[in-house]
Amino acid sequence: MTGTEPALRTVGRVESPLSDPAVAPKQGDEGAPEAWLVFDAAYAPALDGLRPGADVLVLTWLDRARRDVLAVHPRGDVSRPETGVFATRSPHRPNPIGLHRVRVLDVDGVRLRVADLEAVDGTPVLDVKPVLDGER
Amino acid sequence: MTGTEPALRTVGRVESPLSDPAVAPKQGDEGAPEAWLVFDAAYAPALDGLRPGADVLVLTWLDRARRDVLAVHPRGDVSRPETGVFATRSPHRPNPIGLHRVRVLDVDGVRLRVADLEAVDGTPVLDVKPVLDGER
Repeated sequence: MTGTEPALRTVGRVESPLSDPAVAPKQGDEGAPEAWLVFDAAYAPALDGLRPGADVLVLTWLDRARRDVLAVHPRGDVSRPETGVFATRSPHRPNPIGLHRVRVLDVDGVRLRVADLEAVDGTPVLDVKPVLDGER
Repeated sequence: MTGTEPALRTVGRVESPLSDPAVAPKQGDEGAPEAWLVFDAAYAPALDGLRPGADVLVLTWLDRARRDVLAVHPRGDVSRPETGVFATRSPHRPNPIGLHRVRVLDVDGVRLRVADLEAVDGTPVLDVKPVLDGER
């Protein structure tokens, strides 16, 4: 592919009791804890309008993932056949962007407390989007 | 924020009859056409397992969007108060990653035909993820 590759900006970080990706839940509804999303002060205006109770999609950069993996055994289960990463939710993929559906519990300045986030402590946050009506 | 900023890799491109973002639908369910996702041959193994009928989330890089916009009138409607971009689906945001829920119609090598994609022709594709049970 030609052209300049796009460069992401880290707009915040995850603060979570989870520190080890190997033992973190694979999905938020599999026992993930509450966490804080802590944004850089420069992005405070972008948070205006987010309220407790909102369901949002958080996009993160899974900085511990491998980018050279194109096929995996789904959920690490070697009894399942290898599958292309675009047909799985493996963190290992060419662009390891995490997509997390969470509920906002609290808004405190540039800090959002959210439920059920499986991303580990320190994970860079890229974006937050409201869930559309049709998305759940 | 400190640290090296992550660099994305364009894994494919959108081929679509839509060429003008100003007249493209804002969301896929608002009359968006069929389109093809055409992947770089190097990523063929990552597509293994995607089948017609699958519902997937396509992540794109909205390369015509502005990255310096932190608040917008939702859907461009100036009668609505300005809202932080993290509480809207505006394409204009610090990391203009498009998130599109589409159905796979056809798989032809490294080409996927999909329904209802509002991204314009040439838009870089970053990732494809299957929709999780809980996501719709």
